[in-house]
Amino acid sequence: MNSIKVASYIESIEPYQGGLPIKEVARKLNIAEKNIIKLASNENPLGISPLAKKAITEALSEVQRYPDGNGFYLKDALSQKFNLNPDQLILGNGSNDILELVARTFLSVDDEAIYSEHAFAVYPLVVKSVGAIGREIPARNYQHDLDSFRGAITKKTKVIFIANPNNPTGTLIPKDQIQDFLNNVPSNIIVVLDEAYDEYLDEENKSIAFGWLTTYKNLIISRSFSKAYGLAGLRVGFGAGCNTLIELMNRIRQPFNVNFIAQQAAIASLHDEDFIRLSRKINNDGMNQIVLAFDSLGIKYIPSHGNFVSFKLEDETDAMLYYQHLLKNGIILRPIANYKLPEFLRVSVGLKEENDQFIKFLSNCKL
Amino acid sequence: MNSIKVASYIESIEPYQGGLPIKEVARKLNIAEKNIIKLASNENPLGISPLAKKAITEALSEVQRYPDGNGFYLKDALSQKFNLNPDQLILGNGSNDILELVARTFLSVDDEAIYSEHAFAVYPLVVKSVGAIGREIPARNYQHDLDSFRGAITKKTKVIFIANPNNPTGTLIPKDQIQDFLNNVPSNIIVVLDEAYDEYLDEENKSIAFGWLTTYKNLIISRSFSKAYGLAGLRVGFGAGCNTLIELMNRIRQPFNVNFIAQQAAIASLHDEDFIRLSRKINNDGMNQIVLAFDSLGIKYIPSHGNFVSFKLEDETDAMLYYQHLLKNGIILRPIANYKLPEFLRVSVGLKEENDQFIKFLSNCKL
Repeated sequence: MNSIKVASYIESIEPYQGGLPIKEVARKLNIAEKNIIKLASNENPLGISPLAKKAITEALSEVQRYPDGNGFYLKDALSQKFNLNPDQLILGNGSNDILELVARTFLSVDDEAIYSEHAFAVYPLVVKSVGAIGREIPARNYQHDLDSFRGAITKKTKVIFIANPNNPTGTLIPKDQIQDFLNNVPSNIIVVLDEAYDEYLDEENKSIAFGWLTTYKNLIISRSFSKAYGLAGLRVGFGAGCNTLIELMNRIRQPFNVNFIAQQAAIASLHDEDFIRLSRKINNDGMNQIVLAFDSLGIKYIPSHGNFVSFKLEDETDAMLYYQHLLKNGIILRPIANYKLPEFLRVSVGLKEENDQFIKFLSNCKL
Repeated sequence: MNSIKVASYIESIEPYQGGLPIKEVARKLNIAEKNIIKLASNENPLGISPLAKKAITEALSEVQRYPDGNGFYLKDALSQKFNLNPDQLILGNGSNDILELVARTFLSVDDEAIYSEHAFAVYPLVVKSVGAIGREIPARNYQHDLDSFRGAITKKTKVIFIANPNNPTGTLIPKDQIQDFLNNVPSNIIVVLDEAYDEYLDEENKSIAFGWLTTYKNLIISRSFSKAYGLAGLRVGFGAGCNTLIELMNRIRQPFNVNFIAQQAAIASLHDEDFIRLSRKINNDGMNQIVLAFDSLGIKYIPSHGNFVSFKLEDETDAMLYYQHLLKNGIILRPIANYKLPEFLRVSVGLKEENDQFIKFLSNCKL
């Protein structure tokens, strides 16, 4: 036996469960890969920008070199696009890395962090991983309840996570409510605004939080290239905040946390606004297609601002029946019992044909 | 001003300094990129395996998908090659990620970790990042002094880092000495054997530590694809150890820490033993070429088992003169004052023509 002891907070952590990979479903259920439709991880069904593909191909001749640990060119492109200084930016191995860096920089053992019920599963993971205490605030009608967030603040509170839109509920907090919250949070508490799905919002809802950074020195915005930009497989995201906060996070960032291919692809993607526009259009069309089907089948769902929607079955047993039925037919969804939504399943919006298949087998099961 | 407070151990950290990227030198010194020779980061001058290049190209159609968070196929390939079980393996975003996961899993505030003077700069970084205390053991003739390691063990010691071969000294500890050390270390202390440069060793010196894992349940071996495999830009490494240790580390591993392209390239690279053989031959030839030049110029150096060699100038001022002279001529080396070797410079072994240029400008400066 092993005599190694670790801190109790490490022992208490249960690892994150992602969507099943296509290869794994193919292997386990003996289905050809090409017949599998993965609507489980909020990926972009369009793929990636052609400009990003070109950038990756060009980058192949340099993969034996370490990436630029400072991400000079990607930060330069981001700072131009979002009107920020490069020293307000930090790059991450996906936005997951940003969330973890926030926890590791600003939380210590017994500090407290606040996040919502039904919010992204990585918040409690990163909080627990440093021995801090997570305060999960009950959602109100599946939404973040910011009034209760305020009420939960104690002297020990160091970080607050807000997902907007939130995954897996797809709920959106109006901009004025977030700003009101920021106006009333003590300035020694970090507020993380996780905007991984911002690119899917329509113009009127799109975040304006980059413009708030000069006002709120305790605000950190987290963004991802894994969703609308389609670079989930490459792992790249970024954080934006006051340069003094960013500088602290950089001290514990792995020197080469973002690979070279991802940096090059992200730079190219930022320049391809057509691709984002097309991705948003396909998502809007697909979302309409799916919720119309829900309506006609009498299935309830949480109206979503993301590229996914969570729908409600009778109960957990019923949800697992649907999940298994769809899986056997090659359609991978995501059960979200670990988000305290056991009677729900989450479906990512796919291409029209993919949504057709999903709707077909969903109707099947209903009969 | 910002009122955010962080733990003093975060404030005390100085970020890692990597080798200067080619693009940065080109930009700052106004030299064409093609005229720059980077011998600063122990990269493989041959590039990457043609099989890896093919695998990356094929993987491009799937980069919009999240990578397999469990790394099934890469762990499968590794377990076959090294005769291990997949549950003895953990993948990392470079071996840096493995070192950090060890620190975050097994060290808490005020615990102690032991490592050698002149050893890899990431050990103190990851130790400090969790608020633990690093005990740096003075080197003996630039080598790890394992007797003194033993003497430094206290009740607080939780982790010991051994780099073999060590960077930047290139020194190698004989296998029997490491085994003797393992036999005498309390079994509740994790011993990390960092073998990032193992592929460059000749047959008789090659590590046999994977075979030790059944005996030493406190041993974790760290390996990299960034050196001989040439995948530094993609970020992939792995750790091997007792399954119970690996399982603990997996709890705090970022779910998608290793990108898809890196996993596919690593699998392909493992199958290309010809590439590793050729890389080793080119390294051996280049090392001979460089040390012969040192000898003929009367420059002292530390005989190295890696793909780099550290050589000694008069003093720190002299070392910086050499460094700047070479840099102005487009040759990037690595100053290693931060390794307490201020009068040394480290040169990575390049292709013959690259070494020729290095030797030419080195001789120049000497005159």
